[in-house]
Amino acid sequence: MKFNSVLESIKSYEAGKPIELVVREYGISPDQIVKLASNENPFGCSPRVKEAVCSMIDYMSHYPDDSMIKLKTALASKYGIDPNELIIGSGSDQVIEFAIHAKAHGGSKVLMNSVTFAMYEIYAKQVGAQTIRTSSREHNMEEFYALYLEHKPSVILLCTPNNPTGDAIDAESMLSFIEKIDSDTLVIVDGAYMEYARFKDPSKAVDPQDLISRFDNVIFLGTFSKAYGLGGMRVGYGIARHDIIQSLYKMRPPFNITTLSLEAASVALEDEAFVEECIVENFKEMRRYEFFARSKGIEVIESYTNFITLPLPEEKNSSKIAQELLKKGMIVRDLSSYGLNAIRVTIGTESQNDRFFELVEPLL
Amino acid sequence: MKFNSVLESIKSYEAGKPIELVVREYGISPDQIVKLASNENPFGCSPRVKEAVCSMIDYMSHYPDDSMIKLKTALASKYGIDPNELIIGSGSDQVIEFAIHAKAHGGSKVLMNSVTFAMYEIYAKQVGAQTIRTSSREHNMEEFYALYLEHKPSVILLCTPNNPTGDAIDAESMLSFIEKIDSDTLVIVDGAYMEYARFKDPSKAVDPQDLISRFDNVIFLGTFSKAYGLGGMRVGYGIARHDIIQSLYKMRPPFNITTLSLEAASVALEDEAFVEECIVENFKEMRRYEFFARSKGIEVIESYTNFITLPLPEEKNSSKIAQELLKKGMIVRDLSSYGLNAIRVTIGTESQNDRFFELVEPLL
Repeated sequence: MKFNSVLESIKSYEAGKPIELVVREYGISPDQIVKLASNENPFGCSPRVKEAVCSMIDYMSHYPDDSMIKLKTALASKYGIDPNELIIGSGSDQVIEFAIHAKAHGGSKVLMNSVTFAMYEIYAKQVGAQTIRTSSREHNMEEFYALYLEHKPSVILLCTPNNPTGDAIDAESMLSFIEKIDSDTLVIVDGAYMEYARFKDPSKAVDPQDLISRFDNVIFLGTFSKAYGLGGMRVGYGIARHDIIQSLYKMRPPFNITTLSLEAASVALEDEAFVEECIVENFKEMRRYEFFARSKGIEVIESYTNFITLPLPEEKNSSKIAQELLKKGMIVRDLSSYGLNAIRVTIGTESQNDRFFELVEPLL
Repeated sequence: MKFNSVLESIKSYEAGKPIELVVREYGISPDQIVKLASNENPFGCSPRVKEAVCSMIDYMSHYPDDSMIKLKTALASKYGIDPNELIIGSGSDQVIEFAIHAKAHGGSKVLMNSVTFAMYEIYAKQVGAQTIRTSSREHNMEEFYALYLEHKPSVILLCTPNNPTGDAIDAESMLSFIEKIDSDTLVIVDGAYMEYARFKDPSKAVDPQDLISRFDNVIFLGTFSKAYGLGGMRVGYGIARHDIIQSLYKMRPPFNITTLSLEAASVALEDEAFVEECIVENFKEMRRYEFFARSKGIEVIESYTNFITLPLPEEKNSSKIAQELLKKGMIVRDLSSYGLNAIRVTIGTESQNDRFFELVEPLL
């Protein structure tokens, strides 16, 4: 069976190793495994969400409300936008898929950072589009602009804060950049970790309402998978002007969010205090990572997220270290497939982080 | 913002009206509303599933096991296949999307029945493929073959039992048809309602293991949304040879099934007795619909599913009748958008069906 030729160049996405797999591969009991690989919220989600979801258990047989009005109303109120400026995806991931598939095509180009979220390229390849990457590790707006002029891409992806490096674009310089982009180029601002950046440094904060009121070619992405602690429930969203949302809706399969996930996300928005507590704790623990790294003479990329990326000295190999940690039940992300000799570690609870320091110490 | 031109011809899928919308539009209290529009299992899901999902509530923050090994192992065992002959989708809907997007493209053709599941056409249009339809209401394998010879489609869709009509293809005649199709044409056998057909009439039953051992160009689709009572959890699957599955995997976004949904589907397979009881009850109640229709002189399409389609006499208008029922809190599916003057009614519980007969009686 021959499939579309564009598939030939696609390699499937490599997810963080799930605990189940480590249990099977290394025979380590699940309670001995610490997973700091997928940037999940180590404090889980708000207790109110758990209660609400359990109370909906009789509704698993009911198709979701495909208008998603409850969640859209809550998000619209949070951001000061209209519900029809929203599209909900199975993770913000799915909104990236809708956007790239709706705009890019064979022959068009998609511009993104040298090191960034791996799925951007996969979605571009699925429609046969060519990906153009910057050379600098951080989002350099001048280089982006030069490449924009040279290649005239149909889509530009800005990931801020950036995954898997953790750094964030200065909001003002990003806005100045977008001002120079023609209105037929779709600019996707992926803010999956924006809650963390907004807390740490207001100069990195992007306001979706401001963004879409200023620009008619931008979509902002947010998610419930990180700060809201609902990575397993698959809910993300895109915010853009209504005409963009309408086009993206044409790519959306019906009922793309489960009944329980819609409820979970809606109720999560009612407990912002929980999210803020988690973020406070996150940055408190992050300081320990920074201190640890400095004490080992390891460079740290300033992080505006719930993870920290540790580029390793030349004589250390990130794949080897990640593998050694894995054997001891500590799952982190080796970034060698991104071309970096670095590991990415999710900021865990105090005791999870203790365990990381203890296990990594003899390897450095 | 100009999007890909293929989007221009796409109309978004029209879902069955959710109860929430009827509450808002007609001010009817939710407990007065009966929804027989989306072919959900009126008995819900197995109590064991509810228990299992609630016990997983602390895992909502954890990304799903993206290998889905637990669910795949259970499904593989049920069907006597290998786990690597499976791909799991957010509803079988998403597997249709993967398959059509992976195989069809601008310039290629997709062959389907005159009246069939609306999403087939939408997925085909998303990649710019042309849809070819038969003229007969039931799947006529001879007409399919003639159109295959004439158009050389890249994808053929067979929906058995067919939604929204409820009739099913004779399994032997379907197999004979597939034998005549060249091995580079992908044949999708959508068996979303197959559990009902298998119970009612073995001659309509398609065995996925048999199908993929005989043919290298076929994918069988199944779902947890209907007989298993998990419409809100969005889990379906495709069964095909490993090379087809591998290609479809390239179209799959990571983590496309929620953590709770994976658990729900896995546990649902442990309680087949529940499913069988629901199916027995379904056909018992269906006889009441057949009796009612005959008493009114209304033709009935023999149904192998959990719904029944009632083509109305010319002097009655299906949109009007559906609207009248809606005002009284009874949600059924008007099939006028499929070009049929008919309503489709999900077989509900005894009391839900009583209510339907009571409300529709004065309208006929």
